[in-house]
Amino acid sequence: MRIALDAMGGDNAPEAIVDGAVEAAQLADGRFEVILVGRQDELERYISEKGHPTGNIEIVHAPDVISMSESPATAIRRKRESSIVVATRLHKEGKADAVVSAGNTGAAVASSLLSLGRMPGIDRPAIALFFPSRNGGTIVLDGGANSDNVPMHLEQFGYMGAAYAELILGRKNPKVGLLNIGEESSKGSELTREAHELLAASGLNFTGNVEGMDVIAGKVDVVVTDGFTGNVLLKFAESVAHYFGNIIKEGIAESFRAKIGAAFMKPVLSKMGRTLDYAEYGGMPLLGIDGVMLIGHGGSNAKAIKNAVFAAESFVKRDVNGSILNRIKETQ
Amino acid sequence: MRIALDAMGGDNAPEAIVDGAVEAAQLADGRFEVILVGRQDELERYISEKGHPTGNIEIVHAPDVISMSESPATAIRRKRESSIVVATRLHKEGKADAVVSAGNTGAAVASSLLSLGRMPGIDRPAIALFFPSRNGGTIVLDGGANSDNVPMHLEQFGYMGAAYAELILGRKNPKVGLLNIGEESSKGSELTREAHELLAASGLNFTGNVEGMDVIAGKVDVVVTDGFTGNVLLKFAESVAHYFGNIIKEGIAESFRAKIGAAFMKPVLSKMGRTLDYAEYGGMPLLGIDGVMLIGHGGSNAKAIKNAVFAAESFVKRDVNGSILNRIKETQ
Repeated sequence: MRIALDAMGGDNAPEAIVDGAVEAAQLADGRFEVILVGRQDELERYISEKGHPTGNIEIVHAPDVISMSESPATAIRRKRESSIVVATRLHKEGKADAVVSAGNTGAAVASSLLSLGRMPGIDRPAIALFFPSRNGGTIVLDGGANSDNVPMHLEQFGYMGAAYAELILGRKNPKVGLLNIGEESSKGSELTREAHELLAASGLNFTGNVEGMDVIAGKVDVVVTDGFTGNVLLKFAESVAHYFGNIIKEGIAESFRAKIGAAFMKPVLSKMGRTLDYAEYGGMPLLGIDGVMLIGHGGSNAKAIKNAVFAAESFVKRDVNGSILNRIKETQ
Repeated sequence: MRIALDAMGGDNAPEAIVDGAVEAAQLADGRFEVILVGRQDELERYISEKGHPTGNIEIVHAPDVISMSESPATAIRRKRESSIVVATRLHKEGKADAVVSAGNTGAAVASSLLSLGRMPGIDRPAIALFFPSRNGGTIVLDGGANSDNVPMHLEQFGYMGAAYAELILGRKNPKVGLLNIGEESSKGSELTREAHELLAASGLNFTGNVEGMDVIAGKVDVVVTDGFTGNVLLKFAESVAHYFGNIIKEGIAESFRAKIGAAFMKPVLSKMGRTLDYAEYGGMPLLGIDGVMLIGHGGSNAKAIKNAVFAAESFVKRDVNGSILNRIKETQ
């Protein structure tokens, strides 16, 4: 198997991407190779500076870089030789089995749509988020591949999320909930009321509406929502983590007693920290495309990249896309 | 001033409502009276059992109760003698200056619309949420009075939120942001792209789009969003608080070291807890109605009710509604 990395994408690129990729390649034990896509001279220089082993690592040159703030649609059209576009093209051409990018998310989505296209039966791809929860984790989608959705999209997110939760989280017949602002089917926006009807008739293990508090309560395995709401939730959740982390840090800095307390509480505080550390979870897959794209957090460190590479491996090995296709076929 | 309480509304009604109301009436030092609206015999029995002082407390009988799960529109039409409908009617008739309810939120909104009506220039009322943030607190609206909004509503939420932040949080020329999934004005859903244009032309101190992480970052004083997104965010935020609280509690229960650590860290952990305790903030106002309605959390305890009563007093005294009206008039 070969996994292509957008080596220039992300706040800490290329260093963190290279470090994570090299670590993954070492740990992979020959199961896969990693292709670093980016400015060849820059990547080679960094690898040699760090004295990184180069086994199972290949470099493919891509001279352009799309920055985090560029407009995705324009950028991927103008920068055909950017690292994300070249990486996606390698995948399209069969030279890579998956792509990992921590760069501009919109560009990764647009590049996937342009080069790889959608799966049959899927109108809109969706980013599957992982939220820690009382049942070991909940998949929330869409996390922001879309800014507007219609009810049919949400039904399709249900199929994709169920296939993913089954294969990657190991949930049998995953429970699917619709994120809404009330439990009853009559509640909610026009979008959610109609999506509720479609999901209820879908053949999925649809348990009905869930609310904001149910996302981390572990009531369901998959939470279906539009890309706007999912993206707001993701970014808010991350910021809450930092907010609490700061309260604890400031408390420790201000008080010696608190510092001692923190030392005694270390396992508990570490557990809180891990819960919130996206690096633990690696990349988020873009579901619904005819290929495999794992999207890492913009601030990904080497650990996050390493975990995203392994997530890509699992995704390919377990044939999540085949399973999504089967679920869709069954309904037609 | 007279503040009417929906004494039968909320998970802990009537006990917590009565306890909170009595405490507020005692502390009010004659500035206001509290009217408990509900089943007279039940309320009188409880007050006498508890030996509560009855100064500045009046009881108005309302035989019906609307439960938390009843459909609001149907309930307020059928139960004309329910505590929330009677309390709102007292306000309409000038026998009370404000209403506080921790009961069925939809019923409080519907009853307000029916009895009090909307303010001129406001198409949809909105619930103003208070989120703790780095700048001492951010107002987010709508918190769930609406399930679908059009761009014009969001502009109106901007006027209402700015008036509220100015008078209640003491922010001069409050910064207003639009909750979106990207910083640039071209980003977002159809709703937010159009709302962005309206807000930019509104005369408000509109600073542009904000994202999920900015809500508690204190970048702005007011975050404008649709009622669906605001409600999901509110419920999610509360659940995150419980989630972390549980991690700490379980850690302490499992380990003696952690228990000692928690004792040393108490001021820090208390600060975290207070940050998340809605009881600290009291009720959330329903802005845009021709009257004053403070909505408490369904799980309100006596402290939350007491704080909501004082919030209602501030709202009336500072004439938030007059200020909203002025802002709207200036734009016409």
